[in-house]
Amino acid sequence: MKWVYSFGDGKAEGEAGMKNLLGGKGANLAEMSNLGLPVPPGFSITTEVCTYYYAHGETYPADLRTAVDEAVAKIGAQAGGRLGDPARPLLVSVRSGARVSMPGMMDTVLNLGLNAETTEGLAKLTGDPRFAYDSYRRFIQMYSDVVLGVEHALFEEILDSEKDDKGYDLDTDLTAEDLKRVAGLFKARVQKELGRPFPEDVEEQLWGAIGAVFGSWQSPRANTYRRLHNIPEEWGTAVTVQAMVFGNRGETSATGVAFTRDPSTGEKLLYGEFLINAQGEDVVAGIRTPQAISKLVRERQGARKPSMEEAMPKAFAELKAICDRLEAHYRDMQDLEFTVQEGKLFMLQTRSGKRTAQASLKIAVDMVSEGVIDERTAVGRVEPAALDQLLHPTLDPNAPKEQIAIGLAASPGAATGEVAFTADEAEKLAADHRDVILVRTETSPEDIHGMHAARGILTARGGMTSHAAVVARGMGRPCVSGAGMVKIDIAAGTMTCGGTVIKRGEVITIDGGSGTVFKGRVELRQPELTGDFGTLMAWADKVRTLKVRTNADTPEDAKVARRFGAEGIGLCRTEHMFFDEDRIIAVRQMILADAANERKAALAKLLPMQRSDFEGLFKAMEGLPVTIRLLDPPLHEFLPQKEEEIIEVARAAGSDPSKLRARAIALHESNPMLGHRGVRLGITYPEIYEMQARAILEAALNVEASGGKPVQLEIMIPLVGFKTELDRMKERIDSVAAQVKKERDKLPAYIVGTMIELPRAALRAAEIAETAEFFSFGTNDLTQTTIGISRDDAGMFLTDYLNKGVIVRDPFVSIDVDGVGELVRIAAERGRNTRKTLKLGICGEHGGDPDSIRFCHQTGLDYVSCSPFRVPVARLAAAQAALDDVTPRD
Amino acid sequence: MKWVYSFGDGKAEGEAGMKNLLGGKGANLAEMSNLGLPVPPGFSITTEVCTYYYAHGETYPADLRTAVDEAVAKIGAQAGGRLGDPARPLLVSVRSGARVSMPGMMDTVLNLGLNAETTEGLAKLTGDPRFAYDSYRRFIQMYSDVVLGVEHALFEEILDSEKDDKGYDLDTDLTAEDLKRVAGLFKARVQKELGRPFPEDVEEQLWGAIGAVFGSWQSPRANTYRRLHNIPEEWGTAVTVQAMVFGNRGETSATGVAFTRDPSTGEKLLYGEFLINAQGEDVVAGIRTPQAISKLVRERQGARKPSMEEAMPKAFAELKAICDRLEAHYRDMQDLEFTVQEGKLFMLQTRSGKRTAQASLKIAVDMVSEGVIDERTAVGRVEPAALDQLLHPTLDPNAPKEQIAIGLAASPGAATGEVAFTADEAEKLAADHRDVILVRTETSPEDIHGMHAARGILTARGGMTSHAAVVARGMGRPCVSGAGMVKIDIAAGTMTCGGTVIKRGEVITIDGGSGTVFKGRVELRQPELTGDFGTLMAWADKVRTLKVRTNADTPEDAKVARRFGAEGIGLCRTEHMFFDEDRIIAVRQMILADAANERKAALAKLLPMQRSDFEGLFKAMEGLPVTIRLLDPPLHEFLPQKEEEIIEVARAAGSDPSKLRARAIALHESNPMLGHRGVRLGITYPEIYEMQARAILEAALNVEASGGKPVQLEIMIPLVGFKTELDRMKERIDSVAAQVKKERDKLPAYIVGTMIELPRAALRAAEIAETAEFFSFGTNDLTQTTIGISRDDAGMFLTDYLNKGVIVRDPFVSIDVDGVGELVRIAAERGRNTRKTLKLGICGEHGGDPDSIRFCHQTGLDYVSCSPFRVPVARLAAAQAALDDVTPRD
Repeated sequence: MKWVYSFGDGKAEGEAGMKNLLGGKGANLAEMSNLGLPVPPGFSITTEVCTYYYAHGETYPADLRTAVDEAVAKIGAQAGGRLGDPARPLLVSVRSGARVSMPGMMDTVLNLGLNAETTEGLAKLTGDPRFAYDSYRRFIQMYSDVVLGVEHALFEEILDSEKDDKGYDLDTDLTAEDLKRVAGLFKARVQKELGRPFPEDVEEQLWGAIGAVFGSWQSPRANTYRRLHNIPEEWGTAVTVQAMVFGNRGETSATGVAFTRDPSTGEKLLYGEFLINAQGEDVVAGIRTPQAISKLVRERQGARKPSMEEAMPKAFAELKAICDRLEAHYRDMQDLEFTVQEGKLFMLQTRSGKRTAQASLKIAVDMVSEGVIDERTAVGRVEPAALDQLLHPTLDPNAPKEQIAIGLAASPGAATGEVAFTADEAEKLAADHRDVILVRTETSPEDIHGMHAARGILTARGGMTSHAAVVARGMGRPCVSGAGMVKIDIAAGTMTCGGTVIKRGEVITIDGGSGTVFKGRVELRQPELTGDFGTLMAWADKVRTLKVRTNADTPEDAKVARRFGAEGIGLCRTEHMFFDEDRIIAVRQMILADAANERKAALAKLLPMQRSDFEGLFKAMEGLPVTIRLLDPPLHEFLPQKEEEIIEVARAAGSDPSKLRARAIALHESNPMLGHRGVRLGITYPEIYEMQARAILEAALNVEASGGKPVQLEIMIPLVGFKTELDRMKERIDSVAAQVKKERDKLPAYIVGTMIELPRAALRAAEIAETAEFFSFGTNDLTQTTIGISRDDAGMFLTDYLNKGVIVRDPFVSIDVDGVGELVRIAAERGRNTRKTLKLGICGEHGGDPDSIRFCHQTGLDYVSCSPFRVPVARLAAAQAALDDVTPRD
Repeated sequence: MKWVYSFGDGKAEGEAGMKNLLGGKGANLAEMSNLGLPVPPGFSITTEVCTYYYAHGETYPADLRTAVDEAVAKIGAQAGGRLGDPARPLLVSVRSGARVSMPGMMDTVLNLGLNAETTEGLAKLTGDPRFAYDSYRRFIQMYSDVVLGVEHALFEEILDSEKDDKGYDLDTDLTAEDLKRVAGLFKARVQKELGRPFPEDVEEQLWGAIGAVFGSWQSPRANTYRRLHNIPEEWGTAVTVQAMVFGNRGETSATGVAFTRDPSTGEKLLYGEFLINAQGEDVVAGIRTPQAISKLVRERQGARKPSMEEAMPKAFAELKAICDRLEAHYRDMQDLEFTVQEGKLFMLQTRSGKRTAQASLKIAVDMVSEGVIDERTAVGRVEPAALDQLLHPTLDPNAPKEQIAIGLAASPGAATGEVAFTADEAEKLAADHRDVILVRTETSPEDIHGMHAARGILTARGGMTSHAAVVARGMGRPCVSGAGMVKIDIAAGTMTCGGTVIKRGEVITIDGGSGTVFKGRVELRQPELTGDFGTLMAWADKVRTLKVRTNADTPEDAKVARRFGAEGIGLCRTEHMFFDEDRIIAVRQMILADAANERKAALAKLLPMQRSDFEGLFKAMEGLPVTIRLLDPPLHEFLPQKEEEIIEVARAAGSDPSKLRARAIALHESNPMLGHRGVRLGITYPEIYEMQARAILEAALNVEASGGKPVQLEIMIPLVGFKTELDRMKERIDSVAAQVKKERDKLPAYIVGTMIELPRAALRAAEIAETAEFFSFGTNDLTQTTIGISRDDAGMFLTDYLNKGVIVRDPFVSIDVDGVGELVRIAAERGRNTRKTLKLGICGEHGGDPDSIRFCHQTGLDYVSCSPFRVPVARLAAAQAALDDVTPRD
């Protein structure tokens, strides 16, 4: 078993592909060595040692020590020194290196190899005793903290009291002598804390650091992180030991970080910062302002301090060449760390650089035109979720902000406007061309007009799939939901967030992408949809097999979605059409009807309205498929709850308030989610579904008669649990169709299918598919029933669950693959066994979530359907899922 | 293919085992023939002809006609006549005969073979023209109705007008001449209605009747009945054609029905009724009062008309001998039809007789002592559900009753008492030794004391598993729930049922076995638990493999259940213990606590109370296993909702009403069933479960210390959906146990398991069983989530579903084997794959339902748990399920 892999001097035993064995850092250092780049020599102890370590009671393989000794000797030979040799001391860094970077793991010990003797030697060798003793006290501090577990603050105390004694202000005022004494005090403190001395023996130092890295793999923080991110414990971590180089050896030394392209815009130029005569720590500490690397950037920033290009032209040229080479080699924008030691450039790290959504898009498209990557690779490079940033306004990151509350990031985008506490208020303000933020404890279907009028929505209650969140996403309105600290007093016309009181009409700003709420106006950045966006989307469309539809109830939504590339409507909720002011009266008459006849009379009034709704929708979709869900919500949602509303509504409906009150009470349900809704309404009041079927069929005929393309009609029955339910409803629809055909002598083609949103429906899919011609997975409700969680109430404990790591992801945001997912798989399989041509789609909120879309692709669904603004996200995610079939990603 | 099976003359081609082919009637007639009993000759056309008929466009097999012709000839040869022969006319009956008797099927055509000529012949042959023409007109009427589809009423009109014309009062006043004319008018009417004559041709008559039987297999009513009772369409019906015999040929003729034992008491004596000079129709018509068959019965009834034993001693002796023989042959009490024609006895039917629960028990036990059947057979003979009748008071069937409302038969037994509209009222009345019926719109946990005080409970709302129903069954209190027509006005102190107003304190009677409500006092019959009951139960216990436990929260319930044979507690709900007056204050303090510390202080007050609860329970169970479910319901159930209560409670809890109000609002949930409850409480407030675990463990130690048997502790975590939830709670319990062990130096044995009541838990059973040592299926909640039906709201549409045949059984009453059942099977299988010794039980309401118990047995569960009064039912049902393993029943 080979436990140790060396690198340096233009070659290496490992390479970039060996991340699993050497960790990300070690593999890339090896790769750079192989490329002949100037990498300080070093070696990696493999992740297999970590596995061995835990499998054998925290002990090492017998032959590890020899291998490490040899590798250390090799470093010394190349770097011209020896660990512990006072004459030519070798100093090394020790770092952890898992496959992925992981908080909670030991990070770095620098300057290892220093003790009283070697420090003295280093002072002599460099002629810089202050440098040597400063390095020494830093080493003691760092090593004691991360390896020995002695608190960092204890050392800071000593340092501070030393400065006080001397009357110094800054660390840099300390002389070599001071620092030498400080180092002594540090060691004494360690002795006092641990009852044993700080290790002078460099071997002991090295093995202590190695042990600390392996030990940190099982630290509570690392364990939590792994559990949360589904990282297997078996992966283990590697340890990388590398010769130190110093950027703080004078004006010809420097240290810095570079990106091969601008990580913010994606522009192709060498971007980054460096500090002359400094170590990495100093950059982080922020004591001095770093300088730009390239002249162009410096000039754009209007900075006066010279760029590296100007100050160190030779090292810069070398760095530039290496950057180009690494980017070409890795075929991706790189994030590099380097040090210049007395004019000589050393590379310390390279990895794919993090970037903004906009940069990610530009880099991917540019690299294709540059011939670096192909289109498919480009499609895989852009994070689908990041596209959201491109489609909505965002907060100007540089604008001053006063945060007053935080809630859930319910619908992306930022918005600023005057606070309105009721939908009517919002509508009124908007009519005056004022920007409004609608602030509600929670929203209900009666608030729709206000939500539409508002720029953004803020609610005090409700989760990621609360009414506010779902509707806001559908409308593309930014929304922060469940901001529990927001208390609204409508009567007083105020909202209170902690100590801050905001009055009606005052301006606030919300960021639906992060869930934050700010006082006053914060400057926004408007989204720019560049040509790159269209280019990448076109490439994605070539790759994906999953169709992308949209959830849309109005021609406006449908048009927006089509602009974003929707290929049909996967869910048209007909109930939203019932809330319009001129319709709700007829709806309520229907609900209050004592007999089928009366109910039919009220429905007759609704028929022409529904028909014209559908006509608009069908026209907008120009022949694409449209799935229409018949009435789903429980009827009490259409009735007023408050006494004054009841009286008003009764008057408007020509009914008696007492009757209305009695009906509202009779319709009250303990658990409306599991109550008299969906197909259950259709069974009890078949007249409703018959009216809707007629409206749909007649609308299709009318659109076609007026020259429109024939719509592909899919009539969907919600909440089916038993095949018999679907049978009864299909009989009714078919019989309405036969009547329509008789009357009009023509009939549009249509199919009838069902939502699969109950576990029972999924299990009985085989028989349900005997009748259903399509299934649409309503994964919102399927999640509610499978996990037994009401999405309206989930806020009370889901956050706690996420914080405590009981669950890793909100199952309403990303599909619960193990639970809900198994039911989807079962239903897909059993349904298709019965009916090969069964069309399968998903119309829950998950249809816009990339991980869920990948699951849908893998499960063989035909399409996903999501809110209009998620359509591009879904297209890209679907393409990436298809790419994974060929090359699974890490 | 043999299509026709003849019988008669002491032999037959078929036998009793051929019910599937010959139908129940045909098979038993064949069997009686084979036994040499006097059966009029006949034949059965097989169910396979029915199958052929529908598979071949309603046509018959080519060789059927010949076979029928031959079989008819054989009847004629034996009966001494020929179909259509005026000299010696043969008359036959034609009946349908499916495997099970089925409404909607054609029943019977009698006297087939009569036409103008043969009627004249019959008149001559019998010397009784009136008999001949009365038979003829009856035949025309019956045949026209059931075969030709001409309404019965049309003929009654003719008959009435004929009587009017003649000034007759009764049908019997009509002379032979009159009846001859009536027959002519009947035929003319048929001609008018159908445009073709009534068939004179006897062959045409016969095939018409055969076709009508097969046709009726697909009648709408038959189809509905089959769907509702899960009878496969493929079964088909047989047709039985048999020579007519006549009980109306004078004083030496008679017709009757006999039971080989008293179907009401089970007593071994020949029971039944007969009419001299009559046909079966006359018995049904009720014009004359039938006479008793045996002398003993006549004497007991104090009747004067002679019994058959006295009036026809020879025929009686023959009948008695045949009855004894048939009972011994079939080894079961028989229900027989017979006719005596001019002194000669003929047997027309035999089948197992229907009987009351009490009779069923006595007959089964008696037959074992008589050596007729063995114990296992006896166990299979008693309907488990019928035992309920034996355990509760029932209404005196002879008492006068005035029904005022009907609801659901929620908890068996009858009760009578004064109406109380609140729990406090009920308690006060009961304290005065008055019988009370508690009448509520719906009950809540705060009504428990009133329910306990009442003799019976009536609610206007709620289904079979509403709070009232579940608690009432648990307490063994009769309950009618969901009586929608009952309107309660507490303020006025009245309840209104349609037109009837009942005031507070007025007496009503409810029958929880049928769901009916009566005005005033109705006499009750107290249950008699005879020795037979214990005998049968003991036999059942020998047969069954499934254990039977009980759901019990108090020592009283536990004792009742143990008397009924419970072998442990399968579900102890700890929340019921929280509602006691002295505890609810501490519970509310806990809920109002702002921090864990305050919460712990409140819990510390509850600890000794819970501990003593458990001590009582453990003592009562004397070492049997006890499954304790930790707190399950959402916390808001413990808070008051009404303003005046809030103020009162706040004062009692030393808190501020506004704080209490705010907390109640904060805890409000849209769908509490899917909300913050079960293990979710344990995750958020681990202190609660820790207190409960401590109370359980300490109680077990205390009971053992005071000399009690060590209890088998099973600590159950409710509503688990994720393994991590269970892991966290088990860690907490184990850590409490470690503390208890430290404090007491002793620890009772305990295991930790979970309820499986969410589809996700069932699907993830493999990993959950890594931690859980037992699963208890909470099929109430599993049904709610799998089918997406709230049991509290189901009343709004489930009745409609049942009425319309969308579903066949209420899934809250009998487990939905196809849907919920699949999840139970999946969980059992996956759980046991992980942990072979995994204990499996069911604690939902289904644990007391025989069909569900059979399912549990087949699925390999270890036990069922049900309310105390259902324990005997469950024991018997479990035994029958075990018997089915060897000999599946029809």
